[in-house]
Amino acid sequence: MADQEAQTTAGIEPPALSVLRWDEPPEGPAVVLLDQTRLPSEEVELVCADVPALVRAIRSLAVRGAPLLGIAGGYGVALAAARGEDPTVAARLLEGARPTAVNLGYGARRVERVHRSAVESGAAPGAAAAAALAEARALHREDAAASGRMAQYGLALLAELLPGSGHRLLTHCNTGALVSGGAGTAFAVALEAHRKGRLRQLWVDETRPLLQGARLTAYEAARNGMPYSLLTDSAAGSLFAAGEVDAVLIGADRIAADGSVANKVGSYPLAVLAKYHHVPFIVVAPTTTVDPETVDGTSIVIEQRSAAEVTEVTSVLGVAAGGEGGGTAVAPPGTKAYNPAFDITPPELVTAIVTEEGVISPVTGVGLAELCARSSQVTIS
Amino acid sequence: MADQEAQTTAGIEPPALSVLRWDEPPEGPAVVLLDQTRLPSEEVELVCADVPALVRAIRSLAVRGAPLLGIAGGYGVALAAARGEDPTVAARLLEGARPTAVNLGYGARRVERVHRSAVESGAAPGAAAAAALAEARALHREDAAASGRMAQYGLALLAELLPGSGHRLLTHCNTGALVSGGAGTAFAVALEAHRKGRLRQLWVDETRPLLQGARLTAYEAARNGMPYSLLTDSAAGSLFAAGEVDAVLIGADRIAADGSVANKVGSYPLAVLAKYHHVPFIVVAPTTTVDPETVDGTSIVIEQRSAAEVTEVTSVLGVAAGGEGGGTAVAPPGTKAYNPAFDITPPELVTAIVTEEGVISPVTGVGLAELCARSSQVTIS
Repeated sequence: MADQEAQTTAGIEPPALSVLRWDEPPEGPAVVLLDQTRLPSEEVELVCADVPALVRAIRSLAVRGAPLLGIAGGYGVALAAARGEDPTVAARLLEGARPTAVNLGYGARRVERVHRSAVESGAAPGAAAAAALAEARALHREDAAASGRMAQYGLALLAELLPGSGHRLLTHCNTGALVSGGAGTAFAVALEAHRKGRLRQLWVDETRPLLQGARLTAYEAARNGMPYSLLTDSAAGSLFAAGEVDAVLIGADRIAADGSVANKVGSYPLAVLAKYHHVPFIVVAPTTTVDPETVDGTSIVIEQRSAAEVTEVTSVLGVAAGGEGGGTAVAPPGTKAYNPAFDITPPELVTAIVTEEGVISPVTGVGLAELCARSSQVTIS
Repeated sequence: MADQEAQTTAGIEPPALSVLRWDEPPEGPAVVLLDQTRLPSEEVELVCADVPALVRAIRSLAVRGAPLLGIAGGYGVALAAARGEDPTVAARLLEGARPTAVNLGYGARRVERVHRSAVESGAAPGAAAAAALAEARALHREDAAASGRMAQYGLALLAELLPGSGHRLLTHCNTGALVSGGAGTAFAVALEAHRKGRLRQLWVDETRPLLQGARLTAYEAARNGMPYSLLTDSAAGSLFAAGEVDAVLIGADRIAADGSVANKVGSYPLAVLAKYHHVPFIVVAPTTTVDPETVDGTSIVIEQRSAAEVTEVTSVLGVAAGGEGGGTAVAPPGTKAYNPAFDITPPELVTAIVTEEGVISPVTGVGLAELCARSSQVTIS
């Protein structure tokens, strides 16, 4: 761990959450990460001065979230190039750190390709490394810009759908700056509403079993000075019944061609509650989340996760730190658990999908295909 | 704690769960309780040889659950009488142990009245004490009998409503032998189905924030050899969507005159999901749960509980042991929580209410009033 160095920044309130950045101190370039396994109790930065350190940070979930992993992969390859190491080997190492994270490999390979082109065009090592870093920065900027556009489109949609100026929004899981190069997806819309003085209340589902809502979304809400309250996932029903929710905002892990949305388990019950109470249910996700190869919701294979996430209590934190099990049992030994990682919300329960290219409402396969085919299309009907 | 003595019974499989019993060993009479704060990891009995010991057990939640507290109160007064102590003082001490538990005071006062009558009729102290014990035993038997009748009525209802012979039932919170003199309410129906070979699967909601499902219902299911799986509360949505739930069975804290059901938070979202998926939503509760003074759901004041139950993880076990807070924070300091103890399900979402006097379906205020007014009425339409 010689190349991973912890710097505690608790108590210092930086203007924006620095989740991942490129740094060039005198001792050499580094990728600096906010260690997400230490949240919310401590804001600790991890300085990854070489690729193995970054791989360890990815494996330990110090850095997580699909778009953010892509950015980490890109900077990781740029780091190898800057250190005079082989970017192709670096890309393979980074991809292998979490093989199922599509964005990680995408970011690493994209920067590696740019580096290779530069070398093939006769660039000196320093110039090729600079080109790689420029590409990683571009990827980072693109993701931040997409967040910004989703936030704008989302806020405009809220203004259109909701009477009154103070929105009471309910969200699930973590979709903020901790998963993105910018302010995130669903959370970015709530944050934009807050910045424009239009957020009356953010209701944060704790999001069992891994408590991303309590640990990460509440942290981001607190850090941004947003008015928020935490609740157990099943207390959301009482809020709907009391008329305390104006809209639900969630992210997406994958969107099928018909508009079915795969997202963190607990999203679908919120969609049913929203429908029953005539509350808009809004999905915020970049167009890269739409998978035209996945025909509909039934084509999405639902990952079943470890029973220990449900049968043990402190395993919540253990799993977040990369471990599994080893917590305090809250259920009898041998208890089986039904623990799907996500659920599927069919398009008829989704009021709108907000992307960086615009909004689709109602959600149809044709509308989605058009949005993905052409850029900057806005379809609000 | 000299009068409270722990006897570990783990590893011994008694034929039925002995949650609360009267014992007369050579050293004198005692109320023997299964210590619920030690579940599910240990089956430990608490021997309460005097009223202060029983009061401590009630305060620490070693014994809990409305009907069971009534029985504990009754035996407590009988214990005082058997020891030659003042049953009136005992009844007051017991009532004060948990002032909001209506049944506790009911049980204690009922046995105290019988004792007083006996004394006033000229009975010798030993005979009066015997009369008190007989009344406590009668209360215990009545509650067990009510459980048995609810189980029978509930199973008959399931046979009527559900095609096929193997039921897949979903339940929330803990409604079994741990809260009752018998097999409980909703859980008793599932257990009866299991005993008759008609339970294919029991889905157990973990029931955040205090995890009664994981800690207590899973324990009872395991102990009875029932086929069960534990799930986070919000994973129930996926089960409904997959067609894996044939009926929902829950208990009730209070039923208003119009049939609105107050029960553990998380019941209402299940009712909405059940409605959306055309799955019967069945409430199982004794007629004593019906409160004619409460006109409808809006008349029920919803208790907000401590934020620590949601913002701290290990506080789950701490609270169960009578403490509050002091766990590991999973949310940022100062996080507010919306933590209602229960929610209200309106009668139009309730397929049927099963009581010891019969079944009401559809649920109407008139039907409820008739059931409570006349005994042994069965209304299934």
